[in-house]
Amino acid sequence: MAGLTMADLSTPALLLDLEIVQRNARLMLDRCQKLGVQLRPHMKTHKTLECADIMTGGSRRCIVVSTLAEASFYADRGYDDILYAYPLPFDKVERCAQLSERLSLFHVLLDNSLALQQLKKRPLSHGKIWHVWMKLDCDNGRAGVPHSEPAALKLAQEISETAGVELTGIYAHCGNTYGCKGEEQIKAVAQQTTAITLQFMEKLKAIGIQGPKSSIGSTPSCSHPVPEMAMLSEVHPGNYVFYDVQQSLIGSCKLEDVAVRVLTRVIGHYPHRNQLLVDCGWTALSLDGGGRLPTGYAIIEGHPELKLTSMTQEHGRVEPISGELDFSQFPLGSVLTFIPHHACATAAMHPVYYVHSKGKIVDTWKPTRGW
Amino acid sequence: MAGLTMADLSTPALLLDLEIVQRNARLMLDRCQKLGVQLRPHMKTHKTLECADIMTGGSRRCIVVSTLAEASFYADRGYDDILYAYPLPFDKVERCAQLSERLSLFHVLLDNSLALQQLKKRPLSHGKIWHVWMKLDCDNGRAGVPHSEPAALKLAQEISETAGVELTGIYAHCGNTYGCKGEEQIKAVAQQTTAITLQFMEKLKAIGIQGPKSSIGSTPSCSHPVPEMAMLSEVHPGNYVFYDVQQSLIGSCKLEDVAVRVLTRVIGHYPHRNQLLVDCGWTALSLDGGGRLPTGYAIIEGHPELKLTSMTQEHGRVEPISGELDFSQFPLGSVLTFIPHHACATAAMHPVYYVHSKGKIVDTWKPTRGW
Repeated sequence: MAGLTMADLSTPALLLDLEIVQRNARLMLDRCQKLGVQLRPHMKTHKTLECADIMTGGSRRCIVVSTLAEASFYADRGYDDILYAYPLPFDKVERCAQLSERLSLFHVLLDNSLALQQLKKRPLSHGKIWHVWMKLDCDNGRAGVPHSEPAALKLAQEISETAGVELTGIYAHCGNTYGCKGEEQIKAVAQQTTAITLQFMEKLKAIGIQGPKSSIGSTPSCSHPVPEMAMLSEVHPGNYVFYDVQQSLIGSCKLEDVAVRVLTRVIGHYPHRNQLLVDCGWTALSLDGGGRLPTGYAIIEGHPELKLTSMTQEHGRVEPISGELDFSQFPLGSVLTFIPHHACATAAMHPVYYVHSKGKIVDTWKPTRGW
Repeated sequence: MAGLTMADLSTPALLLDLEIVQRNARLMLDRCQKLGVQLRPHMKTHKTLECADIMTGGSRRCIVVSTLAEASFYADRGYDDILYAYPLPFDKVERCAQLSERLSLFHVLLDNSLALQQLKKRPLSHGKIWHVWMKLDCDNGRAGVPHSEPAALKLAQEISETAGVELTGIYAHCGNTYGCKGEEQIKAVAQQTTAITLQFMEKLKAIGIQGPKSSIGSTPSCSHPVPEMAMLSEVHPGNYVFYDVQQSLIGSCKLEDVAVRVLTRVIGHYPHRNQLLVDCGWTALSLDGGGRLPTGYAIIEGHPELKLTSMTQEHGRVEPISGELDFSQFPLGSVLTFIPHHACATAAMHPVYYVHSKGKIVDTWKPTRGW
């Protein structure tokens, strides 16, 4: 990559601004340190070694993953204290057992008693125990035992009483922050999720369960933490290292905090349709957001007058939001820069990320894929 | 993979029915042979060696690709006569030149004079010439010179008169068949695209240009060819080897002709929301179709009463279309089978495809990625 600049890259290409990645990571580490809460960053957005090193401040400890492919990828590269924060899939118990036996600390997550039975059927060797987080649904409405149901406390108790298993923590995802607009709404959801989680910890104490940690997370809530979050053991955001248009609209960040771009080139002029074609289709950007931004499927950097109206597999159609396009501004072969709606979805489409510092390509990062 | 069955696969998994793949490929080869037109199958849907071998009947010749990554992948594996059917990107001229110099026959495509200038600036060595297809827009409205504009004939003439360059063919994509419902509408578009293309070939003859081939393509039109297509040199469909829900709705195929599935497992029961969670999110299915099917983002095989209502990165939410879900029918860990809306988009999410014959896993195919 020596000597390459952004302009030399073959398109489409996923481009990361190293300084912004580092700044986003540093700010989150500082924010958590100031708050006195352990940051356990989520790897699902990027799935690379290099970005994990930045997010963990080089410790290579204390991360969350969304797939076992990620867990193995990081375990193979010296990482430990890995939380597989996904409702235990019954077909993957053996792989989880092997990771538990191999690492100092591998955590699984569950939200039902049948999953616990699966763990009991596979006792760990080498004197190891299963480290289990119970997922609590604090009104997010995806995985987790609803916090208001007696089943929640009952399951926590069952986990803590099971031989060979430790109730390591209570885990909540405040994905409902994604419906927020602005800091005030984000903080309200963060506060509520924290309050519900801490109340649950109190209920556990009341029945004699003192040990478990507590963790909540989402990029919006951890970008604007409320003081009460100091009473949690951990937080687990992930997207913040890249941010994206969606996060800027929620209010997690400003648009200048977004570290990720997709570079594309103009491949066609079609004046009879008042339209450019570019070499970025959904294989390079994803269909996330459904084109519902005022500027379509992405923001086109430096060109608020343009809209990415539609994409096919390898083509993108760019049109002016109103009026006639001045084609002379966009010669064939010239580069346009898309700021993606959702960094996780866009990153998932790329086998390699190009990393730049002030326009100079300084590294390439290769994500893991699959499950 | 010896001895594995579908039930043994870790989920989510992309599953292909080998017999259906072979039947779809065979039917298209037969259809083209009967019509007397050369089939040049498109690789963009699967991007694997094994499926290309099936589609070319083992010849390893005469294919279309959508990216240079595909072109190199196939060239490295003994393929030749490769058409890179994408408006020549100016940043990829050197790579195209190297493929042209290395293969017996590598074709590029263009729709403007500036692209032709790029080729002139890079004469080929070893006595080779550039093989150029001109893209003609036959009312599809993506790339191509509009057939009704005098610029079309002018560009064709310019290509044919350029030293070191051969006007090898005229290429049209009838992507407007994707707006059709049923065989009659498909045939009308196929007929119109064919007629426009053949008229253009006549205009070329009238100015003394006799050599170029003609090619149109799209899975709908080539699944229901009209007799006039016999007068073309080639056709270039691709999706037909897998087909998908979208193609069945257009009328290209029946649902039983769809070769591709995504296997997923139930990971959670949420009776208070009348909802199952499954381990297939948009990383395994893509967001193609926008959830607008009556059954949401996919058809759930054998369960017309269910709907895949939404997905996040690794979770899918399944609900009954109406009434109360009988959770006992869908135990935790049990498998559901999704028929994808768009096979190209779903296949693009998987690093490996599992190939079965009557439920027994017989092979794994690994696609190429990137650009």
